[in-house]
Amino acid sequence: MITLKAILCVNWLRCMTLALLLPVLAQAGEPLASWNDGPAKASITRFVQAVTTEGSQDFVRPGERLAVFDNDGTLWSEQPLYFQLLFALDEVKRQAPQHPEWKATQPFKAVLENDRQALAAAGVDGLLKIVAATSTGITSEAFTANAKAWLAQARHPKTGKPYTEMVFQPMLELLDYLRANGFKTYIVSGGEVAFMRAFAEQVYGIPPEQVIGSTFQTRFQPDEGQPSILRLPKLAHNDDGPGKPESIEAIIGRRPILAFGNSDGDLQMLQWTAAGSGKRFAGLVHHTDARREWAYDRQSRVGTLNKALDEANERGWTVVDMARDWKRVYPFEAP
Amino acid sequence: MITLKAILCVNWLRCMTLALLLPVLAQAGEPLASWNDGPAKASITRFVQAVTTEGSQDFVRPGERLAVFDNDGTLWSEQPLYFQLLFALDEVKRQAPQHPEWKATQPFKAVLENDRQALAAAGVDGLLKIVAATSTGITSEAFTANAKAWLAQARHPKTGKPYTEMVFQPMLELLDYLRANGFKTYIVSGGEVAFMRAFAEQVYGIPPEQVIGSTFQTRFQPDEGQPSILRLPKLAHNDDGPGKPESIEAIIGRRPILAFGNSDGDLQMLQWTAAGSGKRFAGLVHHTDARREWAYDRQSRVGTLNKALDEANERGWTVVDMARDWKRVYPFEAP
Repeated sequence: MITLKAILCVNWLRCMTLALLLPVLAQAGEPLASWNDGPAKASITRFVQAVTTEGSQDFVRPGERLAVFDNDGTLWSEQPLYFQLLFALDEVKRQAPQHPEWKATQPFKAVLENDRQALAAAGVDGLLKIVAATSTGITSEAFTANAKAWLAQARHPKTGKPYTEMVFQPMLELLDYLRANGFKTYIVSGGEVAFMRAFAEQVYGIPPEQVIGSTFQTRFQPDEGQPSILRLPKLAHNDDGPGKPESIEAIIGRRPILAFGNSDGDLQMLQWTAAGSGKRFAGLVHHTDARREWAYDRQSRVGTLNKALDEANERGWTVVDMARDWKRVYPFEAP
Repeated sequence: MITLKAILCVNWLRCMTLALLLPVLAQAGEPLASWNDGPAKASITRFVQAVTTEGSQDFVRPGERLAVFDNDGTLWSEQPLYFQLLFALDEVKRQAPQHPEWKATQPFKAVLENDRQALAAAGVDGLLKIVAATSTGITSEAFTANAKAWLAQARHPKTGKPYTEMVFQPMLELLDYLRANGFKTYIVSGGEVAFMRAFAEQVYGIPPEQVIGSTFQTRFQPDEGQPSILRLPKLAHNDDGPGKPESIEAIIGRRPILAFGNSDGDLQMLQWTAAGSGKRFAGLVHHTDARREWAYDRQSRVGTLNKALDEANERGWTVVDMARDWKRVYPFEAP
């Protein structure tokens, strides 16, 4: 159905994002409107008040108010599989005509034949092979175009929504609230950096230079007049676990004062943030809501939350109980 | 001599920097005050006016006004040797008591005995060995403390000035002018990133997260309650030549619209910047002033400027002739 709104929208993704953000804008007078009153919301507002009150011993000057967020499972959903992997699986099918050899080669054969058992047997290495094959060997600009095209048309198998609508409304509000209080908001995620940059600015308000993630090696190609950056099928940095504080130090060069994650892969980032001098905030999103989202933690293969949950409880970090603390999960739910 | 000013200064480096910046502040009404009127200054102001004029076809929104600067030879001097190498040589002497084996091992022996011939024979590999030995195997915090201590007391062999005063006054003004016009200013340099961050914010007004450089591999050490980042003696990224556009793409994720360098190591960064769509600025600082600074280009071992100079002339990039275009070189010269 072509509506007037659609006709007026030159850039479909931008419009969708605007629609997404409208609920936030409408509630601009009330920060964190989708958070229920309770210990999680209170610990956030208490922290922000402490570090932004001039004269307070906890005051932090704006340039040092750095907040880092994991992406998968923290800012958007990650079930039944990390969305970037779903993108890579779709890309195998789309790119298959250019790769006739895939019909007879695992793990690509498994994807093309929807053979879940063979795909599961290929394991993490198989998935990485699929990501590398579909996301490298092309220029950075070509990859970004592929990612944007997929994000614009792909739909989640359970909700039927575009993936960029499966972001957490309370976390969008938290990002806004922090920025309104002089924070610089970063993503620090195991996802590949160029994939996240394809939507982070429009969906989260986080510009490319504040997105940190896993990276492939690249090669500058100095073609006469039209140089390009070629993506190579070799991981340069795995931004997971200890890789997170390492990339924070390499790229930001300053320790964050707030960190939010949802899995054991975020533990070291939380430890690094929490151990800084002065007041710090470490938070976890705990997926406890099988009705509105998903419920999983210690036993999950995606987004395992085990050690980090224990450490959060020991150290008194903030654990957000999705079912208890969030009025709404997604922006598309009725407020 | 202890002066009242010195007594009042809690942080010596900060005070020195304030003194450094006073000339700039005094001339706040007149941007680029240390630039002579001429083609270089005119090309800068013409470019900035074009990309900041709303409604102009060359207009660039503030978030995309990214400017990247090489450091050695572009923002400060680099003779007789890159200042970070002079730091590393001094560190060999300072750290020697903890390394008795250095007395009998090259290239350390050469440094300890001031044996220039043996040091020259060790070549670039020898220098890299010295940098790695003196700058790694310690935490990121310990390294920053070492770098700051050296910067506070070391003096340049020719000028007798602290290295942080050997920055180019016209370039400080250019950084200010760009920021006043909504640009985000970055360093993209072959220098090691943590060394530059030890002074970049105070001296250039460029915060750590806008400093990109060569990096060592690191390892997160999760010591109970007090984790740290250990610097390892292995280069992770060599931010020179093609490494510059590669790191810009990996870390910034957006193509700059202005780039300034001074040597062949900056050529690919200039190519990458200049080839973007829309109006772009590519500039070179040409060291032509043997009296106030140094004069060198095609034959120099430090900061070789050969291919990039040819390409700048072919493509009409802006070449700053230091002797002709700059009223003052250093802030400590009389205005």
